Amino acid sequence: MPQDPFDWIDAEHERRLAAGLVRTLRPRSADSSLIDLAGNDYLGLTRHPEVTAAAADAARRWGAGATGSRLVTGTTALHARLEESLADFCGFEAALVFSSGYAANLAAVTALCGPSTMSGVSPSVPLVVSDAGNHASLIDGCRLARAETAVVPHADPEAVRKTLEAHEGRALAVTDSVFSVDGDAAPLAALAEACREHGAALLVDDAHGLGVLGEGGRGAVHAAGLAGDADVVATVTLSKSLGSQGGAVLGPARVIRHLVSHARTFIFDTGLAPAAVGGALASLEVLRREPGRAARVRYVAGELHRRVTAAGLTAVRPDAAVVSVRAPSPEAAVRWAADCRTAGLAVGCFRPPSVPDGISRLRLTARADLTDRQIEEAADTVLRTAPAA
Amino acid sequence: MPQDPFDWIDAEHERRLAAGLVRTLRPRSADSSLIDLAGNDYLGLTRHPEVTAAAADAARRWGAGATGSRLVTGTTALHARLEESLADFCGFEAALVFSSGYAANLAAVTALCGPSTMSGVSPSVPLVVSDAGNHASLIDGCRLARAETAVVPHADPEAVRKTLEAHEGRALAVTDSVFSVDGDAAPLAALAEACREHGAALLVDDAHGLGVLGEGGRGAVHAAGLAGDADVVATVTLSKSLGSQGGAVLGPARVIRHLVSHARTFIFDTGLAPAAVGGALASLEVLRREPGRAARVRYVAGELHRRVTAAGLTAVRPDAAVVSVRAPSPEAAVRWAADCRTAGLAVGCFRPPSVPDGISRLRLTARADLTDRQIEEAADTVLRTAPAA
Repeated sequence: MPQDPFDWIDAEHERRLAAGLVRTLRPRSADSSLIDLAGNDYLGLTRHPEVTAAAADAARRWGAGATGSRLVTGTTALHARLEESLADFCGFEAALVFSSGYAANLAAVTALCGPSTMSGVSPSVPLVVSDAGNHASLIDGCRLARAETAVVPHADPEAVRKTLEAHEGRALAVTDSVFSVDGDAAPLAALAEACREHGAALLVDDAHGLGVLGEGGRGAVHAAGLAGDADVVATVTLSKSLGSQGGAVLGPARVIRHLVSHARTFIFDTGLAPAAVGGALASLEVLRREPGRAARVRYVAGELHRRVTAAGLTAVRPDAAVVSVRAPSPEAAVRWAADCRTAGLAVGCFRPPSVPDGISRLRLTARADLTDRQIEEAADTVLRTAPAA
Repeated sequence: MPQDPFDWIDAEHERRLAAGLVRTLRPRSADSSLIDLAGNDYLGLTRHPEVTAAAADAARRWGAGATGSRLVTGTTALHARLEESLADFCGFEAALVFSSGYAANLAAVTALCGPSTMSGVSPSVPLVVSDAGNHASLIDGCRLARAETAVVPHADPEAVRKTLEAHEGRALAVTDSVFSVDGDAAPLAALAEACREHGAALLVDDAHGLGVLGEGGRGAVHAAGLAGDADVVATVTLSKSLGSQGGAVLGPARVIRHLVSHARTFIFDTGLAPAAVGGALASLEVLRREPGRAARVRYVAGELHRRVTAAGLTAVRPDAAVVSVRAPSPEAAVRWAADCRTAGLAVGCFRPPSVPDGISRLRLTARADLTDRQIEEAADTVLRTAPAA
């Protein structure tokens, strides 16, 4: 009698249950009264009336979907406008929009690492030098690229330099600009220097930098003076600061042109829905007009950090909008987050296996639209519900 | 002097230019007068007033974005409703919505192939048996899964049976239900039988079947009598027949629960935007009310095929909505598609490297909302512009 092909899933589930690692979905309502420090709507734009109106108008004018691949029917004039606006705002020559930041990262890593297939030249497989703290989508990009991947210690330009030194031929260094778990920033200038010494390209995932860091929220790559450089490519998401959905790759025009012909998650995916395109465009317009939103979200993050550490909690000083507060155990973190929720505050809870170092955290994400009173309330709630040290 | 890290891209571009394989984006306007046989809006729902109104309302009510991962803040009550509605319509126990069909396929393949990590049991890496004509996202899923992958000849259940026979341990067979290039259907019943003889699971990408095949458009898996079976998992897209954006995995509740805890493109991606969720939900409602749309799109495909083959062109008899017409060369296919466009008809053009067999095609996608007059006009245009044999 053949076995049941999914019995192993039940065994896996029992194992996770015993370890307290089962995740469940909790659908939220449209009119929750919670203070939200769990989402990534850093600038408070996802419900901004101009942004939601632009999303709604785009759906009515262009349809609920893009109808096809970007290369067939899925590129509207609205997509082209968003790409121009993003490239211009962030200081790059060109941009290409994807249906998610995940897809943009898979595209950037794989297309930039593809073996060169020039006739007359033997295919050279490049080296990818990847920070140990990189986002899952960058890691999956490295896996898909089938390039040689060297994982280097977190935020360590010297390790990148040494790895590049020991390699002959093409290379690409890959890093988040702001790491999601602890909210710490990558040393971009030093990384770019290490890359340049060895003729390597630098790919930066600026998902948590766009809208938060740099002049008026132009991102971490812009802040580091690297935007528009010939050897630098950035990816961003439209679903965090820009309050919408989707992702984009920003870089030299020839790199973007290369992605159009080579990136599988571009060629074989339906184009981003018009509503998401319209929403992101409107958010960029609000951000251009109100550059103070970027400074405000950094201030809010600093205040949250100041308040919780002053009261004795251990938290990483935030380089952007994420404040990571250490919890004594996975169970304590889950209970802490639940107690916050009961008290009216939604916070993130990171625990194994999402945290590579095994340390569980509460993750507070600052929002530019929080009032001073809400900041105070939120910090008080985190402190009041904190597990005994 | 270190090399320029992107010089190889220019060389690659020259090579593609010389081979006539450079792709360019052509942004479309909102009010094009072309008859569209290039997109995948099979049921004509993407601009249906109920569907666009539902997308617009969702953006206004829930915001332009989902604000976070489905596991944190990105699951709204609207997502939960869509998942219930999809599972119910297609005849499965449960469903899980992703930001794209691409992401759903990466999730399904990787999470179903993950090595079992039960303590006390040595990890077993499963075998994936993959049809040679499968979509890029399934292929990338196999690559990411790091499972052993056996690619079998296209639509060949006997080859699947023999491959499974030669394997000990867990296995998963993976296939498109309708293949994108030629529009031919997979022999699902025979594949399921081969899988069952060997205790293997079957994963079917029903992207081109949903809305087109089966009772009232319930899909190819439903039509084959396999929907809801304990050893069958399906993926669908919300961006073709449902006129929106996103994808979903459908299957037994325990498989869906497993994906929630294990699928990286679920855990580490922002939830699908509310507008896309609302649009897809409305499309499902229209389809339940007007099941004749599915029969109509099949009729339209049959008519297009009948007319072009009666006049001497070579085309594959369509099993669903895609009519694939053979072109003599990549250059002729490009010219043919351009001539159709000049005459007011948008058609797809498939050429290497998107076609594994190297044969270029015009690709006509039927739409349920085409009038008999438009069908006639479209077929006439294809014939009038056809290259000399």
